Amino acid sequence: MTVGIVGAGQLGRMLALAGYPLGQDFLFLDRTDDTPGAKVAPSLRGEFTDRRLLRELARRSEVITFDWENVSVESLAALGRRTRIAPPLAALAASQDRLSEKRLFDRLGIPTTRYAAVDSRASLLRAVKRIGLPGVLKTRRMGYDGKGQSVLRRLDDLDAALATMGGQPAIYEEFVPFDFEVSIIGARSTRGEVAIYPLNGNVHRDGILRVTRSPHGTAALQRRAAGHLRRMLGHFDYAGILNIEFFVRRGRLVANETAPRVHNSGHWTIEGAETSQFENHLRAILGLPLGSTAARGHAAMVNLIGTMPGREALLAIPGLHLHDYAKAPRPGRKLGHCTLVAANPAARERRLRRLLRLVDRGA
Amino acid sequence: MTVGIVGAGQLGRMLALAGYPLGQDFLFLDRTDDTPGAKVAPSLRGEFTDRRLLRELARRSEVITFDWENVSVESLAALGRRTRIAPPLAALAASQDRLSEKRLFDRLGIPTTRYAAVDSRASLLRAVKRIGLPGVLKTRRMGYDGKGQSVLRRLDDLDAALATMGGQPAIYEEFVPFDFEVSIIGARSTRGEVAIYPLNGNVHRDGILRVTRSPHGTAALQRRAAGHLRRMLGHFDYAGILNIEFFVRRGRLVANETAPRVHNSGHWTIEGAETSQFENHLRAILGLPLGSTAARGHAAMVNLIGTMPGREALLAIPGLHLHDYAKAPRPGRKLGHCTLVAANPAARERRLRRLLRLVDRGA
Repeated sequence: MTVGIVGAGQLGRMLALAGYPLGQDFLFLDRTDDTPGAKVAPSLRGEFTDRRLLRELARRSEVITFDWENVSVESLAALGRRTRIAPPLAALAASQDRLSEKRLFDRLGIPTTRYAAVDSRASLLRAVKRIGLPGVLKTRRMGYDGKGQSVLRRLDDLDAALATMGGQPAIYEEFVPFDFEVSIIGARSTRGEVAIYPLNGNVHRDGILRVTRSPHGTAALQRRAAGHLRRMLGHFDYAGILNIEFFVRRGRLVANETAPRVHNSGHWTIEGAETSQFENHLRAILGLPLGSTAARGHAAMVNLIGTMPGREALLAIPGLHLHDYAKAPRPGRKLGHCTLVAANPAARERRLRRLLRLVDRGA
Repeated sequence: MTVGIVGAGQLGRMLALAGYPLGQDFLFLDRTDDTPGAKVAPSLRGEFTDRRLLRELARRSEVITFDWENVSVESLAALGRRTRIAPPLAALAASQDRLSEKRLFDRLGIPTTRYAAVDSRASLLRAVKRIGLPGVLKTRRMGYDGKGQSVLRRLDDLDAALATMGGQPAIYEEFVPFDFEVSIIGARSTRGEVAIYPLNGNVHRDGILRVTRSPHGTAALQRRAAGHLRRMLGHFDYAGILNIEFFVRRGRLVANETAPRVHNSGHWTIEGAETSQFENHLRAILGLPLGSTAARGHAAMVNLIGTMPGREALLAIPGLHLHDYAKAPRPGRKLGHCTLVAANPAARERRLRRLLRLVDRGA
């Protein structure tokens, strides 16, 4: 009764902590021993592409999942049909390539930004002419937390932006001057049951998620985002948690990206929802009934980035729940998060202001 | 930043799972490797009285705590003053001996059953004459979950009851025909901060806790029970979670026993309170601010004893949270528990009936 997890970061750690009460055991695979996951469950050490280690992980697990999306689809696919992997590799592959992701949005009728594939100076110039300025040039692969992106405001920015891509395949996207950002998270089980969480309102800084509030936005927005998510869940015959991020402009949703895994914008669900995204991911991939995704109140999640504020000062904030990932501090690194749940949005905002003052002082 | 835990049962396991998000590490000491705790944290294997292992535990931990009360006070005391142990050994010692426990209740003005020390046939006869029949003869030490107890209904039961004691020191107590049973759980931190949970209503079967409901009872009962707990917390200059169980007869509290640790009747706090008893035990012994003990709704906890019902059937009950201790089934053994939290008592009872039908069918 072991779940194998490729990647032993904080997401893997929180999966294991959510899964022990279900009677589940866990085994990680990661490149170092010093991971958030390895502190709470056994871990194999090696490259994510190491076939021998992946086979060992498969042999010792009833199902394999992953805690980030930049793992090798080819290596996992090579394990063959006898190894159960969830979420499906097709969803993982689509999320790894921004061009496939955009095409997926198009195919499923999910509105997204205008985009064009870029593999040369000439194709970038054509893209800029067609889509206009400002725009964003992004590598197709291995981008997260705002890495591998370059904003073009004038044609003069073109060569500098191209240089930062280092010759990698890229896409050029229109720049969307959004009013706010939201994400929707839901689970689909191997038995086809679907459960969707309330919409998350997300605030980024320097490309990294900083604050999530949930529930967020109107009922109409929730309904439309949930509809898009349901279509994608069905399309992949999905099992596990899936996330789509949207810009919201004048009440309209514009899909930005999707992640086939538990997601930072869903961390509030540990205390703020009846069942956490971590438990529901496990229930979904193990074929168990899904738990309720109803909110317990009005939640806010704040990421702790780069430096950890003092534990005493954090825990002195009424109703605060701390999640320390046990990582060494480093600029820009997600070291933990805090969740606040209040009976109404006003009370949440009061506590949130106190928390943000503390976090900003530490940063 | 390690907490050493003597005993790696389900209580230790739930302490570790609650403490990882605080950035804490854990190290257990237990007699076997196959414990609920050893599945989630490293564990030393040996007797609880093994001085060498206890010294190793002390050396590797900033504070030592315990997950059951039948550990050796003498062995822990021998670690000396440089080792921080919480809760205090004086509270542990008092809870290990039913006679000391009764005297403690008396000294603190906490109403309890009438009792007398028994160390011979003659002293038992005197006790029965003074206190009357029916009554309960209990060993002074090592009793839990109804073990080491014998009910005397007639004088003829005297010799049979004495025989079951096997010559061990005992006490004779009046039999209290109670209306219901409650327990009160609270935390006191090394800094003297106190936080007390809502009263638990407990239902036992065959001497083992079966169902807890919380909040339970009137505001007056809560106030009186909390007052008793506060006096005991102050008396010991206590750090950690402390529990007192009471019989309630015609609205009056009669103390039955006390446990200087996280307690089965407080398991509902994981989902049913703002902060669980496990997290507050750790906050208390680490000198951190205590978390809110407010209830999130109306909770019920059901122990899974002897056999585990199917995980699928359990998780199909809306709002059910499962805690599987990963123990091998055995008659009378606590294998796990389930918690239900509802917005009102009527909704809780509806779900609870469904859960109890399932659990009774399994048993």
